[in-house]
Amino acid sequence: MASDHSVRGEEVISNKQVILKDYVSGFPRESNLYLTTSNIKLKVPEEESGKDAVLVKNLYLSCDPFMRGRMQRDLPPGEPEQSSYSLGSPIVGYGVARVVDSRHSDFKKGDLVWGRTIGWEEYSLITTPEYLFKINHTDDIPLSYYTGILGMPGITAYFCFFDIGSPKEGDRVYVSSASGAVGQLVGQFAKLIGCYVVGSAGSKEKVELLKTKFGFDDAFNYKEEHDLDAALKRYFPEGIDIYFENVGGKMLDAVLLNMRHHGRIALCGMISQYNLEQPESVQNLIAVLYKHIRMEGFSVAEYYDQYSKFLDFVLPCIKEGKIVYVEDITEGLESGPAALIGLFSGRNVGKQVVKVAQE
Amino acid sequence: MASDHSVRGEEVISNKQVILKDYVSGFPRESNLYLTTSNIKLKVPEEESGKDAVLVKNLYLSCDPFMRGRMQRDLPPGEPEQSSYSLGSPIVGYGVARVVDSRHSDFKKGDLVWGRTIGWEEYSLITTPEYLFKINHTDDIPLSYYTGILGMPGITAYFCFFDIGSPKEGDRVYVSSASGAVGQLVGQFAKLIGCYVVGSAGSKEKVELLKTKFGFDDAFNYKEEHDLDAALKRYFPEGIDIYFENVGGKMLDAVLLNMRHHGRIALCGMISQYNLEQPESVQNLIAVLYKHIRMEGFSVAEYYDQYSKFLDFVLPCIKEGKIVYVEDITEGLESGPAALIGLFSGRNVGKQVVKVAQE
Repeated sequence: MASDHSVRGEEVISNKQVILKDYVSGFPRESNLYLTTSNIKLKVPEEESGKDAVLVKNLYLSCDPFMRGRMQRDLPPGEPEQSSYSLGSPIVGYGVARVVDSRHSDFKKGDLVWGRTIGWEEYSLITTPEYLFKINHTDDIPLSYYTGILGMPGITAYFCFFDIGSPKEGDRVYVSSASGAVGQLVGQFAKLIGCYVVGSAGSKEKVELLKTKFGFDDAFNYKEEHDLDAALKRYFPEGIDIYFENVGGKMLDAVLLNMRHHGRIALCGMISQYNLEQPESVQNLIAVLYKHIRMEGFSVAEYYDQYSKFLDFVLPCIKEGKIVYVEDITEGLESGPAALIGLFSGRNVGKQVVKVAQE
Repeated sequence: MASDHSVRGEEVISNKQVILKDYVSGFPRESNLYLTTSNIKLKVPEEESGKDAVLVKNLYLSCDPFMRGRMQRDLPPGEPEQSSYSLGSPIVGYGVARVVDSRHSDFKKGDLVWGRTIGWEEYSLITTPEYLFKINHTDDIPLSYYTGILGMPGITAYFCFFDIGSPKEGDRVYVSSASGAVGQLVGQFAKLIGCYVVGSAGSKEKVELLKTKFGFDDAFNYKEEHDLDAALKRYFPEGIDIYFENVGGKMLDAVLLNMRHHGRIALCGMISQYNLEQPESVQNLIAVLYKHIRMEGFSVAEYYDQYSKFLDFVLPCIKEGKIVYVEDITEGLESGPAALIGLFSGRNVGKQVVKVAQE
């Protein structure tokens, strides 16, 4: 049989990729990653390996702190549902893409999708599209939002705050890493239901954003506070009802001293700890006992079945201007490594996204 | 008006008391307490101060770890609903007593009561009997049980385990300080619903008790384990679903490494921490995030309104022999200080009670 590319649709094109060079310990560096170009057939394989697979063209890639864990040889103890990245292979995360070919009944060529099995490359073959969602795109919503407010960070902010935080009107809410992908949403959700909300972030610019753009009641730059306990007492003289935890370590220790009785700590992330060989110790955990605090680690995977419920809530909020979203979009796959690594020094202002392709 | 004691019922008798001599820091010592004898009128005052008051003859006093906090000048940060004991006054705790006189409509002379406002003395005037419960005594139940299985420790074990632990059949349950007033009950409750239960305690005798008397599946002496993490891995090769926490510190740190995903940590006490100037730090808290653990501090005060529901469950269990209870009863108020201090070195085997009077 003649090998006719145009007839069989097996067009082979180049595929730029971001590859993990070596496993990370301590702070990740751009040099832990490198760019390469391989080739890819723009068709799902017809063999058994391609059964239920989807081939996508990546449009936006999401930079998320959890990716740090997968960059080390041994996962952090207890890290669930994941595995370390393979050396020499593209790293994998959340993203937005266009379906180029599909052998999965839920997806067809031309569909826009978002999900978590998207490689850091121009085209990805997704063999197990279990967390891939179709996007009903409308022109008034930026597609990149599906890496943020309309994607995993949005679902996380919503369900972690409402389900674990159990907020009610008048509650005093503290959000750390508050201008990030999740934090900026938590603060706005909390304001919508009448909470008093204070956020912390790592620069003057971010603090201004919290107070002006996101409508936090107050905000502070944690890098300018030598005594976090004293800072929290200034903003929460009567204590904190809900702490939305993105940071861990010293911040959590100071928060424990300032929680109110029956306070809730919604554990979403601990970004200050991911790059440490030994996690910082926490001294004040006995406060959980004395103050009858509930602390819980959030698992986004269990909430994807409520995604449409979440959209029903959040899409009107966006359209009516009740919720805004700030993204930090960098252009081109080449800029990906710096963008991802920059998360851990707080370089990004808002949700960090890498735009891979213009449609 | 003639002062006729017999007519006005103002019989004055001597009242032995255990007095706090000085505030405690670090480990409490017997010398922090002393015995004295004062006088008391066996009648509730007719003035305003006696309105709603109850005068009782104390029968049993309960030795509870939480009393340590009230023995220091400044309460531990966040310690709720309590205050430090007054120097020169009798210490106060839970106990069982007989009403001698009452100006409270709920109590009358002769009633048996248990509650938490009972002084360490022969007779107590209880001016605010808000946590005082009437006992419907039957001869087949020891009265002292109302300091333990039928009192605060029982309510604590039941609701902390069932409400915070959310147990289900087959769950792997670990109980620390497992032969104590609360732990021995938690293990038995867990067995009743088909959990696999392992307990730890601080002597060979207590470990034997756990395995033979209380029906734990297994038990170990934590003092003989140099590596608590390794010990827990031996007893829970597949991890722990529910940790019933009575100890804190190093034990909690080791448990965090061995919790299963969606495990629950029911925080009832942290007895290893109460006598430390600085609490031990916890290193492995990030496991709460990665494993989506729920950890919650228990507040018994919120469950007293469900006391009758608890009795409906536990009284038949006792009568049918499904639940047993081991007490360590010491005789006489004079033995009280040693009994209370002994809690913190684990001297007691089972619930520590002080018998003040034989009726």
